[in-house]
Amino acid sequence: MTNPQTDIHHIVASMDTGIDDALALALLLAQPNVRLHGVSASYGNVLEQPAARNTRAVLSLLGRSDIPVFDGARHPSWAPYFIADAGCAQFHGSDGLGDVSTGDGDNADFTPTTPGETLASDANGLVTLTAPQIRNLTECGTAISVGGYQVGEKHADLPTMPELTIPSGSAHTPTPEKLEFPQESCSQATAGARMIVDAARAFGPDLTILVTGPLTDIDTALTLDPEAVRQARIVFMGGTLTQEGNCYDLVCETNMIQDPEAADRVLRSGADVTMVGLDVTHRCLLGSSDITPWNAAHTEASRFLTAIAEFSIRANAASEPIFAAGMPLHDPLAAAVALDATLVGTLDLPMCVETRSGDGTGVRGRTIGNPQGFIDASLCPTHVAVGVDRERFLARFTGDIANLLTSLR
Amino acid sequence: MTNPQTDIHHIVASMDTGIDDALALALLLAQPNVRLHGVSASYGNVLEQPAARNTRAVLSLLGRSDIPVFDGARHPSWAPYFIADAGCAQFHGSDGLGDVSTGDGDNADFTPTTPGETLASDANGLVTLTAPQIRNLTECGTAISVGGYQVGEKHADLPTMPELTIPSGSAHTPTPEKLEFPQESCSQATAGARMIVDAARAFGPDLTILVTGPLTDIDTALTLDPEAVRQARIVFMGGTLTQEGNCYDLVCETNMIQDPEAADRVLRSGADVTMVGLDVTHRCLLGSSDITPWNAAHTEASRFLTAIAEFSIRANAASEPIFAAGMPLHDPLAAAVALDATLVGTLDLPMCVETRSGDGTGVRGRTIGNPQGFIDASLCPTHVAVGVDRERFLARFTGDIANLLTSLR
Repeated sequence: MTNPQTDIHHIVASMDTGIDDALALALLLAQPNVRLHGVSASYGNVLEQPAARNTRAVLSLLGRSDIPVFDGARHPSWAPYFIADAGCAQFHGSDGLGDVSTGDGDNADFTPTTPGETLASDANGLVTLTAPQIRNLTECGTAISVGGYQVGEKHADLPTMPELTIPSGSAHTPTPEKLEFPQESCSQATAGARMIVDAARAFGPDLTILVTGPLTDIDTALTLDPEAVRQARIVFMGGTLTQEGNCYDLVCETNMIQDPEAADRVLRSGADVTMVGLDVTHRCLLGSSDITPWNAAHTEASRFLTAIAEFSIRANAASEPIFAAGMPLHDPLAAAVALDATLVGTLDLPMCVETRSGDGTGVRGRTIGNPQGFIDASLCPTHVAVGVDRERFLARFTGDIANLLTSLR
Repeated sequence: MTNPQTDIHHIVASMDTGIDDALALALLLAQPNVRLHGVSASYGNVLEQPAARNTRAVLSLLGRSDIPVFDGARHPSWAPYFIADAGCAQFHGSDGLGDVSTGDGDNADFTPTTPGETLASDANGLVTLTAPQIRNLTECGTAISVGGYQVGEKHADLPTMPELTIPSGSAHTPTPEKLEFPQESCSQATAGARMIVDAARAFGPDLTILVTGPLTDIDTALTLDPEAVRQARIVFMGGTLTQEGNCYDLVCETNMIQDPEAADRVLRSGADVTMVGLDVTHRCLLGSSDITPWNAAHTEASRFLTAIAEFSIRANAASEPIFAAGMPLHDPLAAAVALDATLVGTLDLPMCVETRSGDGTGVRGRTIGNPQGFIDASLCPTHVAVGVDRERFLARFTGDIANLLTSLR
């Protein structure tokens, strides 16, 4: 008989650390029985390097600089370049953490680099391309993802910068002399993916992999060592099955649209996968009054968590009437489910992610029942969360973080 | 304690009688404890008049000409004209019943009428328009539904006839002198809708309304007497929540796309509604070997039911690999659920049907969780069938029809 309150939880995470990722991280750190062995930083809400810095900043503020942060995926499996969607800054701030100072001067790092003419990486591993260079790349067939959409696609929501800063770090980094064109996949054996593999080898079925961003890192880990990684339990925030999505035509969810191919491979991998999507996260709203107790500690950490939550509460209230009561706790709910599966009711169904849009093919990025499940009873079902014990989750989330902040005083 | 096997079931139905509607009707007639008080014939798989003739033909073959058939909706609520989709003939035959003779000469009625120049109705209530007249109507803004899509929309799949025969019968029938343009809704207080209202008034919560086509008739009945009709239990075949759809981008299902506005109103009506969609009907396939026992009776009725099922089994096998093992029993499963709710496992969720396609609005015809349900706990949930006891259903369906056919010998 397992007890989620006392059993030791071995966890590794892949995070594109924006505001709700930071809150999810805080929830994990609040648990005395959690062993967080490492975090792989991923592109998503922000670029990979800011995600890594944000993760380190939160860990440091919460007194856990001992937890290692690894460089994960810098771009999706289908494109060698990634630019964060302009909409992300609206919900997470331009630095990913509500433009709230973490108190260690890190914010200076987020100043956009000066537009340049060279394709060489800077100290942050970023390549600065001019708009004409981007045009040239795309005209030559190189994929550049803007929040999941190819540059030039009508839904690609470019930041309003005169020039664009995009990450390199893949084998496909173009040089002015020679452009390389990705085929099916842009494999990235990142340090983050290797950390996930190592943990899966060490802990087997006792490991939970928590994913709060795109599934690119997990896809890579499954490619590197399918047998070991398939033993782990995977809990990801993303997708939607029974509710409207948050991408343009309301069919898809943002984490899934970042890398539909990777997500599809993960869902079909045969691993024990739990999907915590908008079906349940939109039911769990954090309002201003819920976080009042956090500020009682009067510390840098309490001020910080309160401020980023307030940023997101304001941004969500301004975006949708259904969020008037608060910010949806996307990533914190996934973290809570990683700790206690009984918080959600699931529909167990073989799932897939559609990768092509159009007549008879589907909508790229849509999470939906795998039609092969009708004729192949051996397909491994995904546990899709469709119900949630909202009160129990909210009480635990706000209470555990309040306790953590008090303990750090 | 209710017993679905022995309790009396008071039922009325709205059917766009094609092949699987006919099989659903046979399943109802096989039950000694069913009182089928009337069938409203609806446009959908076929035009309304062929649906009425098909319904009467099946009732007659199965010895139940006493059950009255009423003229229901001839067109959706959003368009005064309706043309059956060309794809319907592929799955149901050009007459809706696999082009199998019902033995009473009815098939002669299905010969397409000669193209003409007049807008007057013929004896079947049909108006014959030339292609230029249709162009003129659509240019003037009159909506013409082709299987749910406006003429001219890229998904409108027109039959390959030199001219088109479309039904009239609404207040919006145009004359050469004066064209009337529908506003939001084209109300149709049809005899079929009035029959449903009368039954709801007579039987209250003891009535089950079974719908195997568009929800137009039920929407009209709910408009005519919301209080009475809301007392009834409504079971409809249509929609899809956790599986791909069968319309072009795989988001929608054909019964729902016919009349999204009507379906949306029914789902939000507050009635006790059960949705039997592709989530479950695609799991219930009828193969050739399943129907062998039907033919043992060697009667006109057994030959007919066997032949239409074989037509559909062939058509489905040719359409999709997932139907290689048989035809999906869409409408028969809905009929079985009308008789015994325990055949399916449901997800209870406030639902809606999206009526607009586009960024931030959705996909017209999509059945999905109603986002208002996140903030309004008082919304009435739809019982969405997401699991099915396939073996029990198939055994009952094939066995009950075999017994019916034997009893008619």
